[in-house]
Amino acid sequence: MPAYTAPLRDMAFVIHDLLRAPEQFRQMPAFAEIEADLLDSALGSAARFAEDVLAPLNAGGDDVGCRLEAGRVTTPPGFADAYRQFVDAGWPTLSCAPEHGGQGFPALAHSAVVELLNGASQSWTMTPILSHGVYKIVSAHASKALQDRWLPSIVDGRVTTTMLLTEAHAGSDLGLLRSTAVAAAEHDLPETPAYRISGSKIFISGADHEWTDNIVHMVLARLPDAPPGVRGISLFLVPKQLDDGAPNRLAVTGIEHKLGLRGSPTCAVALEGALGWRVGKPHQGLAAMFILMNEARLNVGVQAVAVAQGAYDAALAYARDRVQMRVSSGAKRPDLPADPIIHHPDVRRMLLTQKARIEGGRMLGYWMALCSDLETHHPEPAERAAAADLPALLTPVTKAFLSDNAFDDANLALQVLGGHGYLRDHGIEQRVRDVRIAQIYEGTNGVQARDLVGRKILGDGGAKLGQLLARIRGFIASQSEVPALAGLIAPVARLADAFEALVGELAAAQEVDREAPDAAAFDTLQALGHLCFGYLFAQAAAIALPKRGAADPFHAAKLETARFYIRQLLPRAFAHLESARASVQGGDATLDERRLFG
Amino acid sequence: MPAYTAPLRDMAFVIHDLLRAPEQFRQMPAFAEIEADLLDSALGSAARFAEDVLAPLNAGGDDVGCRLEAGRVTTPPGFADAYRQFVDAGWPTLSCAPEHGGQGFPALAHSAVVELLNGASQSWTMTPILSHGVYKIVSAHASKALQDRWLPSIVDGRVTTTMLLTEAHAGSDLGLLRSTAVAAAEHDLPETPAYRISGSKIFISGADHEWTDNIVHMVLARLPDAPPGVRGISLFLVPKQLDDGAPNRLAVTGIEHKLGLRGSPTCAVALEGALGWRVGKPHQGLAAMFILMNEARLNVGVQAVAVAQGAYDAALAYARDRVQMRVSSGAKRPDLPADPIIHHPDVRRMLLTQKARIEGGRMLGYWMALCSDLETHHPEPAERAAAADLPALLTPVTKAFLSDNAFDDANLALQVLGGHGYLRDHGIEQRVRDVRIAQIYEGTNGVQARDLVGRKILGDGGAKLGQLLARIRGFIASQSEVPALAGLIAPVARLADAFEALVGELAAAQEVDREAPDAAAFDTLQALGHLCFGYLFAQAAAIALPKRGAADPFHAAKLETARFYIRQLLPRAFAHLESARASVQGGDATLDERRLFG
Repeated sequence: MPAYTAPLRDMAFVIHDLLRAPEQFRQMPAFAEIEADLLDSALGSAARFAEDVLAPLNAGGDDVGCRLEAGRVTTPPGFADAYRQFVDAGWPTLSCAPEHGGQGFPALAHSAVVELLNGASQSWTMTPILSHGVYKIVSAHASKALQDRWLPSIVDGRVTTTMLLTEAHAGSDLGLLRSTAVAAAEHDLPETPAYRISGSKIFISGADHEWTDNIVHMVLARLPDAPPGVRGISLFLVPKQLDDGAPNRLAVTGIEHKLGLRGSPTCAVALEGALGWRVGKPHQGLAAMFILMNEARLNVGVQAVAVAQGAYDAALAYARDRVQMRVSSGAKRPDLPADPIIHHPDVRRMLLTQKARIEGGRMLGYWMALCSDLETHHPEPAERAAAADLPALLTPVTKAFLSDNAFDDANLALQVLGGHGYLRDHGIEQRVRDVRIAQIYEGTNGVQARDLVGRKILGDGGAKLGQLLARIRGFIASQSEVPALAGLIAPVARLADAFEALVGELAAAQEVDREAPDAAAFDTLQALGHLCFGYLFAQAAAIALPKRGAADPFHAAKLETARFYIRQLLPRAFAHLESARASVQGGDATLDERRLFG
Repeated sequence: MPAYTAPLRDMAFVIHDLLRAPEQFRQMPAFAEIEADLLDSALGSAARFAEDVLAPLNAGGDDVGCRLEAGRVTTPPGFADAYRQFVDAGWPTLSCAPEHGGQGFPALAHSAVVELLNGASQSWTMTPILSHGVYKIVSAHASKALQDRWLPSIVDGRVTTTMLLTEAHAGSDLGLLRSTAVAAAEHDLPETPAYRISGSKIFISGADHEWTDNIVHMVLARLPDAPPGVRGISLFLVPKQLDDGAPNRLAVTGIEHKLGLRGSPTCAVALEGALGWRVGKPHQGLAAMFILMNEARLNVGVQAVAVAQGAYDAALAYARDRVQMRVSSGAKRPDLPADPIIHHPDVRRMLLTQKARIEGGRMLGYWMALCSDLETHHPEPAERAAAADLPALLTPVTKAFLSDNAFDDANLALQVLGGHGYLRDHGIEQRVRDVRIAQIYEGTNGVQARDLVGRKILGDGGAKLGQLLARIRGFIASQSEVPALAGLIAPVARLADAFEALVGELAAAQEVDREAPDAAAFDTLQALGHLCFGYLFAQAAAIALPKRGAADPFHAAKLETARFYIRQLLPRAFAHLESARASVQGGDATLDERRLFG
């Protein structure tokens, strides 16, 4: 079987049937010309690039990995050439604004392309994936001089980009970072102060490679007068190579040996007075960087779904082909020496679990992307504000719930193959290793959970959550006349009520124990993830119900998938609610650690 | 920190306080001399071997892996020498009977040593771990001639052993295997027919190495008159090297490239008329092999716990050392730039989850080992029978629940380290890769679940399950006067009732849909695992309650661990019960696969 088959029909179901995106784009002047056909055609082209160019490189990239020699990084065979094809076809420009030389496609299209590229090769995609976020930072916060100099080559892909955040002692806690920036006024550009930046950064994806002549690093560092903590961090644009052709004073000092993503160079970088220009205001670099981080977190969710999809496809094909044992009710295929394992109920359970969570993840990820389009481009301010609230609430859920599910799903795919899945031959074990990082980078899933409960839910007194619940209840009310859906709607309604009750308890508990929301954060995020999936699957079921037919099982399978999710996976949400409640009452957070861990 | 620290005190808590094993051994003539001190001293010596000899080899073994050159396998540096030390110290003889040259230790001691060796290096342990099971098969089923020839060197470790079961097309379904055995009467030994065996086997751990001069392969193959399926499989003892010094006609044709266990050679073996001698009756080889398989399945559970323990230890040490962010209620350590992450509630949750499931797994695994001692050696037939029923019921739970937990726990350990956990440096990612196989080999966890529900629970009308439930309820009743335990006992009692109700529903459902138990198997196994853990943690809490003191937090932590498990993880059992019920009612097993998967 091919290394990757783009799930275009599943993607179209979400874009057209669930989100009715082209209809919505018609209401937004920026996207008035993005007709359904144009969107589908763009995704079809991206799918061919992913399938034909990228996917064949993925396993070899993992085998060969990256090399660092004399300070220069070399990526696996074919990676650089694939990037040249990617640039020549104009993909980096897809979702940039026409005034910057972009094609003006919506964020939703960008998310779909993110899925396709990652489905083919997560390792390769690590290097180009940040450029859209850097484009947004630079176009929003950089001076005209910096924009004039760098935006065109960021947009068309002549340079790639990185973000230099993490230091060895400062990962989740960027407030601890120590890199410094001192003024270098002789290099100032108009309204753009220059600095010499020094420090040591780690975990930098694509900090060097042979793909392009230059690389733009977005670097967080402290000015001499910076206050301590996160309010003292500034953002700088630091090119690999200066305009006079001289190399900037930064060096890749190592590449990491990792569980996965071996085709992507994860670099340690030493800045030794590297020349850079400030982007945005002094000490406010983190806020600017969060433009990129929020997009990156949504991308991670979609990326994880994509990698899980590739594993699922391989497992499904294997399960249809592999014969082993008879099912308990007698031979399903008496013509064969045993039954194809897809007929074994437990194999079905594993495959349906993967299928459901992948499809649920795609629905949530694409929905968030559409919301960011509405937020940016809808002509009505009220619509913009309402749309903005959803990613503001659900970005941590999208990042963490989708990546947790994806890792589990890739492992279920491996399990379907049994011992054969443990071997390198089928490519699934690589996907397991690769996707594992999605639970960690761009803010660990624990950081996401704390952010969700503390800042996103309780931080506004539950206002954004209330909007989501109102939406869910509105949909539920709209389906009250459809008896065939009652069995799917009722558990979602029950979960919405139970979740709201939990949040009330968290708010009350916080008054007496400020650790309580953090203690319950993981289980709360998981429960909200299930609620979102339940809501989305109920919608999918409502769409599929009238469309299902005997000849083409596509919509019947959509209905069965919704049914499986709500009946067999959604119950886990209630266990999470109970655990969240127990952790609030438990007070483990306040015990001496020796009493807990001996 | 050291690569592995043997958890001797936790092991002693289970052996002495929970199981009161030395007391029980005193009632068994075979173990009358196994005093508590002797047991502790043996485990102490094994711990030193594991810590000092094996653990330092584990990471390097993963880096270097195994080589196959000119048909000979070479294992990583130090592995062969460690085996020589292992043999010289007499470890292979530990739990063999004195009449065979063994030291006569109980199976429980063997399980504890299995934990220690695997905690230090799962890869290394793969090769010696099977010999005790092969010893049991050969001493129970082989002819006197074969026993005289091979038992002494199996017992003292001069040979290692393998099992040649799997063929490329026959993994879970051994009934499909094709290897053949034809009589070779000229090589018959007294009452021991000889055969020439041909076939291709895969996934053979330690099929060749440079550790010993000879290797004993236990091979499944078919006689010419064999009926098809599992009732036509015979068992043969096939040495690597014949007594005249000639090599036997079998060859290692490849070693697999795997996700993990890279220090262990997983071989493909071609038998081309290899000379072997039948063990046991014609066509009844699978039953003999199951002596080994049942022991191996229990070992896999303990092995998985051991590997997770190593990951947990590294994560706990890291969490105490790494400072990052302040907890929400204010600085815990104002003297440091940020709080040690062990104070963050979500990190505590991850660590407590690992600790609880590791300790629960050890309790269940060691309990099963003690039951097999009671089954074999208790002077009272009624005690023997009662003890036999527990592993007969719970072997699939021990194998699957412990290995599922262990993989998840190793990943939680990795998560505690964030990006640093994804790197090879800390050794946790190796443990994640290594322990993943435990969910697959010795019968996939899906096969375990099907076996549990179909054969072990419903197969005897719930008789063995009824015994377990009676034990649990007996313990619950015995604690009714201890108010401090009421909050821990009540959820276990409720789960016992709910589980029993589910089994009733499964039995009824099976009457109308023979796939129903298989459809519910995964969730049923998980729920029963939680019930066993809940029962064991309630016992642990009852023991720890009066012993806890301020100076030494050991017993207080045992109590908190029990509390954490029952309050925060046990709720998942009820979600599994609901999912099991939904899968029985869902009828997914009977749908056309295209309607499910499109």
